[in-house]
Amino acid sequence: MYDEQRKYLAKAEESYLRVALVIEYDGTNYCGWQVQKNGVSIQQKIEEALQKALGRRTAIHGSGRTDAGVHALGQVAHFEAQTDIPADKFFYVLNDLLPQDIRIIRSYEVADDFHARFCAKGKHYRYVIHNARAKGAVNRLYSMFVPVPLDMGRMEEAAKHIEGTHDFSAFCAAGTDIKGTVRTVDEVRLGRDGDYIIVDVVGSGFLYNRVRIIAGTLIAVGKGKMEPAEVKEAIDKKDRTLAGATAQAQGLFLVEVFYTAL
Amino acid sequence: MYDEQRKYLAKAEESYLRVALVIEYDGTNYCGWQVQKNGVSIQQKIEEALQKALGRRTAIHGSGRTDAGVHALGQVAHFEAQTDIPADKFFYVLNDLLPQDIRIIRSYEVADDFHARFCAKGKHYRYVIHNARAKGAVNRLYSMFVPVPLDMGRMEEAAKHIEGTHDFSAFCAAGTDIKGTVRTVDEVRLGRDGDYIIVDVVGSGFLYNRVRIIAGTLIAVGKGKMEPAEVKEAIDKKDRTLAGATAQAQGLFLVEVFYTAL
Repeated sequence: MYDEQRKYLAKAEESYLRVALVIEYDGTNYCGWQVQKNGVSIQQKIEEALQKALGRRTAIHGSGRTDAGVHALGQVAHFEAQTDIPADKFFYVLNDLLPQDIRIIRSYEVADDFHARFCAKGKHYRYVIHNARAKGAVNRLYSMFVPVPLDMGRMEEAAKHIEGTHDFSAFCAAGTDIKGTVRTVDEVRLGRDGDYIIVDVVGSGFLYNRVRIIAGTLIAVGKGKMEPAEVKEAIDKKDRTLAGATAQAQGLFLVEVFYTAL
Repeated sequence: MYDEQRKYLAKAEESYLRVALVIEYDGTNYCGWQVQKNGVSIQQKIEEALQKALGRRTAIHGSGRTDAGVHALGQVAHFEAQTDIPADKFFYVLNDLLPQDIRIIRSYEVADDFHARFCAKGKHYRYVIHNARAKGAVNRLYSMFVPVPLDMGRMEEAAKHIEGTHDFSAFCAAGTDIKGTVRTVDEVRLGRDGDYIIVDVVGSGFLYNRVRIIAGTLIAVGKGKMEPAEVKEAIDKKDRTLAGATAQAQGLFLVEVFYTAL
């Protein structure tokens, strides 16, 4: 009897799996990543698909939240399950059960101590600005439209002030309840693709709305409404009101989450 | 009295305007360009906006139709109106009245004998193929997903057979009722942008579904299901069944319509 039990437990242990998912989503029709009372969230849709696949409620843990309308090319989440489905097959199984605007790009087994949020070493966000005379139709949900010509040189100068380790109080949504606001931005890189200005922000320990405030501030500098040096001043004075407005959600993409060992 | 009438007519003549519109649209939610019994068309939405702006029903004439789900970055249409609104202001006026997925990019006065369809000298279409292991979420409505690796070299070889003046019976939807199928394709250019293969087709006298059949044929060649030489054979034999399948509507963009004198 004990032997039987041991065998059973050994088998259970064997089939106990921790799986990471890399997820692309179009945030247009969702209230954001996290489960909320009002509106449908991306996390909820994936948990519902997982429940259908596994036959039981299973929670997933994302690398962090994204707001309503924000998109992801490579959000990461993990879950634990007792299942015979191989980790790399969840990619197929879940895509069959998910709506077309949420796609699992990859699924793979991770170590028992992997946690999508706590093990994340950094993130790559992208902000897309459509800088043209006329607003577009095709990219309207995937960029912020700015009809005023933007000076890329000024924006690049301002971006340099943001890079580095700073107290980012000025670039953090007011009322954010977190311990300390000192964070590191490794890179703020600007690029142009036709009428689009692409702002890539790579860093660790992101603060709520930081990338959207960085984008809004760079837009203000590009328009000539702020001087590049005033960006440094906003950081030094830790004053949110000295930075630019929070840029629109639909221009933001979570591109990649970095982990030391994948 | 006659003088009054002459003045009135002279004034009417003066304010009689022929306006061309350059239109970008996301075709996802429409039954196509042309007004149809079932479903909402892009032409209809623009005519409704024009009726609000001008206070009377006004027909617009497009450079040609696009199917349900097909997008445009630069469709051209014209209309005539007796109005005090300057031609270049229709850009603002109509955008205020149109849904966000239909945008007027530019409006300008054209000569009395300009006709968006009959004066068009050529068109630039683009077909976007998402060639990756996993289907995307963000670009799902703006590309065709092909999970099998595509051989660009073979596709480029096949594209060369399509360029030139040919009887395009093999690349034309069956049952198309038109006089003659000899047309010219100036260029079939392939490019790659990450996981996306971009097929640009420039030509004159397009036939129904031709670009989608070209794309479908290049995909078949890229997969290894057809030989590049078989594309020449399909053209020579004028046999639709020898060409590839019609690629999905949502990968197609009408990029630009060319006129001799703009």
